[in-house]
Amino acid sequence: MLDRMKHALKSSIETSDHERFNLLIKDMYPIDIADFLSVHSDQILITFLKYTSPDLHAKVLEQANEKLQLRMIKFLDYSEVIHLFSQMSNDDVVDTLGHLPIGLRKNIINEIKEDERTSVEQLLGYSKDSAGGIMTTEFIALNRNLTISEALDKIREIGPDTEVIELIFILNNNHELVGTADLRDILSSDTNTLLSSITNETILTVYPEMDQEKVAWLVSKYDLKAIAVVNSDNKLLGIITVDDIIDVIVQEQSEDLLRLGGIGGQLKSDGTVFYYVQRRIPWLLINLGTAFLAAFTVTLFEDVISQVVALASSMSIVTGMGGNAGNQTLSVTVRSIALGELDLKKHWKKVFKEVMIGILQGAIVGSLAGIILHFKVGNPMIGLIIFLAMIGNMAVASIFGFMVPLILKRFNFDPALGSSIFLTAATDVLGFFFFLGLASLFLPWLV
Amino acid sequence: MLDRMKHALKSSIETSDHERFNLLIKDMYPIDIADFLSVHSDQILITFLKYTSPDLHAKVLEQANEKLQLRMIKFLDYSEVIHLFSQMSNDDVVDTLGHLPIGLRKNIINEIKEDERTSVEQLLGYSKDSAGGIMTTEFIALNRNLTISEALDKIREIGPDTEVIELIFILNNNHELVGTADLRDILSSDTNTLLSSITNETILTVYPEMDQEKVAWLVSKYDLKAIAVVNSDNKLLGIITVDDIIDVIVQEQSEDLLRLGGIGGQLKSDGTVFYYVQRRIPWLLINLGTAFLAAFTVTLFEDVISQVVALASSMSIVTGMGGNAGNQTLSVTVRSIALGELDLKKHWKKVFKEVMIGILQGAIVGSLAGIILHFKVGNPMIGLIIFLAMIGNMAVASIFGFMVPLILKRFNFDPALGSSIFLTAATDVLGFFFFLGLASLFLPWLV
Repeated sequence: MLDRMKHALKSSIETSDHERFNLLIKDMYPIDIADFLSVHSDQILITFLKYTSPDLHAKVLEQANEKLQLRMIKFLDYSEVIHLFSQMSNDDVVDTLGHLPIGLRKNIINEIKEDERTSVEQLLGYSKDSAGGIMTTEFIALNRNLTISEALDKIREIGPDTEVIELIFILNNNHELVGTADLRDILSSDTNTLLSSITNETILTVYPEMDQEKVAWLVSKYDLKAIAVVNSDNKLLGIITVDDIIDVIVQEQSEDLLRLGGIGGQLKSDGTVFYYVQRRIPWLLINLGTAFLAAFTVTLFEDVISQVVALASSMSIVTGMGGNAGNQTLSVTVRSIALGELDLKKHWKKVFKEVMIGILQGAIVGSLAGIILHFKVGNPMIGLIIFLAMIGNMAVASIFGFMVPLILKRFNFDPALGSSIFLTAATDVLGFFFFLGLASLFLPWLV
Repeated sequence: MLDRMKHALKSSIETSDHERFNLLIKDMYPIDIADFLSVHSDQILITFLKYTSPDLHAKVLEQANEKLQLRMIKFLDYSEVIHLFSQMSNDDVVDTLGHLPIGLRKNIINEIKEDERTSVEQLLGYSKDSAGGIMTTEFIALNRNLTISEALDKIREIGPDTEVIELIFILNNNHELVGTADLRDILSSDTNTLLSSITNETILTVYPEMDQEKVAWLVSKYDLKAIAVVNSDNKLLGIITVDDIIDVIVQEQSEDLLRLGGIGGQLKSDGTVFYYVQRRIPWLLINLGTAFLAAFTVTLFEDVISQVVALASSMSIVTGMGGNAGNQTLSVTVRSIALGELDLKKHWKKVFKEVMIGILQGAIVGSLAGIILHFKVGNPMIGLIIFLAMIGNMAVASIFGFMVPLILKRFNFDPALGSSIFLTAATDVLGFFFFLGLASLFLPWLV
């Protein structure tokens, strides 16, 4: 939304110019209104609630962040909250309920109409990150023995309350899911045809327990508009639509980015300094442990360093390069795992290819570093040492950059979780060890 | 697809059991067939093409990777290729054409029917990563003066060739885009009503030149099913559907991951060792330069190190911690930029908050490191030095982790591009400088 528009809106509220206010609000998207309200005072929120329709309240509530949802509900009475919920889609109601204090949540659930309450309670039972947690129960499911004209009547009736109408789910007489029908085919078929004759029986389904990332991967791979969630009896529990999948992908991928850096899960965007420090410090402490491990490796060779002090400056070249090369491999691996292209069991042999890449890279970069160092220090032996250490450490970088995320995934951790810290621990410790170890072997030619 | 199924399919081809082959293929998704064909011999591809319908060929061609597309086109004659293209959606035709050798591409374009050729040539003119490059010209646009029953007739007729039918685009008499209509409303309205009465005039549009990442961000923020691409006269050129947006988001975000690691743009998943080394080596060479810069900083203090050799092992703690802390900030910043939450002009002041976070983190981790080092080396002064250096270097890590991606973006580079390498250059050089500089100041108390 343009800043100009925000100012106009604010001033229309402040000057009680309701005509102008309504004109402005009419053309705004609910998400923009939510953004606007979330950074303005309660006074403005109250005015907004007073002069706009419950229909709009519901749309804004769906888009509001946790804080704004609580503020909105605070200023509405119970009956209106219940009414709002009845206009929102079930999965959004469940999301909103999840943000409320537990007492308030229970009171509201008790007020919800009985038929809706069952499905809301059911949805609340699933883990937030599972197929069940992100599915909606607003879909169209029709018996395959209906005729096209009967089907169209049902679609006209149920359509307005559903998230998708292009895809109609088809059930048999046992209420089991047997396929889907495309609304295009329904519209263009003869009115007496049976739905069963245009049912596409190739259908992908998921169980409610499936992780949302896996679901997102399926929908994206098969270009689906929606995917069906069924129980073990093949009864349709809900559907997950492609726009919910986008949210999952954005959330999961940004979590991957954060986790790579060693910050767990989700992150508020408006936290305090202490909030952020709290989220980051655990991994930094682990990192401190690994840093001391690397320092300890150097301590083992203090004797050598005191004889050839030039080693102190050169050793960080080996570890620094190893860390960055390993992070390259790491980012490729994490990406391939996220795209469903890599799996420890099937593809562990690829580590040999990665090692080849590491050795080749090490040889190229190491020979350059060796030549520069030879001229700088005036000793070809130190050039040879960095050449060999670089090859060794780049191979290590490849192995850890490739295996750490795969192994984390194998044990059901997130493949990105802190992998960068484990990786640099390995390239630091072994990089120092290779370089200083070789130096102590070749010490007679160095001093 | 299950491995069992792949084996069954392969054996049905090898044993020329066409009945079984057709039975198996009927239940498979085009993407799975494409995956299967891409790892099998030309012989199997030829058999597949021989015993399946052009309709299926088109679907598989849409899903095939570049290599398989070329192989498929090699085994089909011109007329069939043209026929396939006529069954594919325009944006997929354009993608496929983009993968063909330029001579072959021109020949095929010349064979395409004149009306389709124009729109294909137009689409080929847009940059691959722009709104124009990912839009499709298969949409439903109707004049607002049509009645519902006339509209439904048109939808029945055009529907099967379009990517979205839930959303109908509404034009005025000048063929300008004025809004959208929801198919739900069309289905439930009286047949004599005019489309204009159910047109929603709040509509977001983009120009064909807009970067695909920006488009994806809009569609995801506003939960759109499709977004309209218009020219400066507000004429509708095409639409971008939500499933194409998913591809964009997956592609852009995985590119961010790769770029952070210092690997440009896209990456084949089946390249040779040399291919990968080639893609990674440029950034490693830049990294080599920065590593020598860091090493040079250490060289400045060789004198101090030769007097207190314990400094050599401890200095890497400061730089290692700085690098990882900076990468935490970096990943948060790159994510926020991608989500459209951060902008250099508006939010540069947030760097002060980041610095506060860095100083606080440095103080916590630094005091721990200081205490450990004091007991290890037996000198409180070295503990104080690492404490101060850690605070300084964590502040640097925060500044660079926050500013580097924002500045890269400001100059129209990708915010993730190699930022990790610039960042670790800063934390290495300044980390060594802080630690060894303080050590040389306090030297009398260290020896």
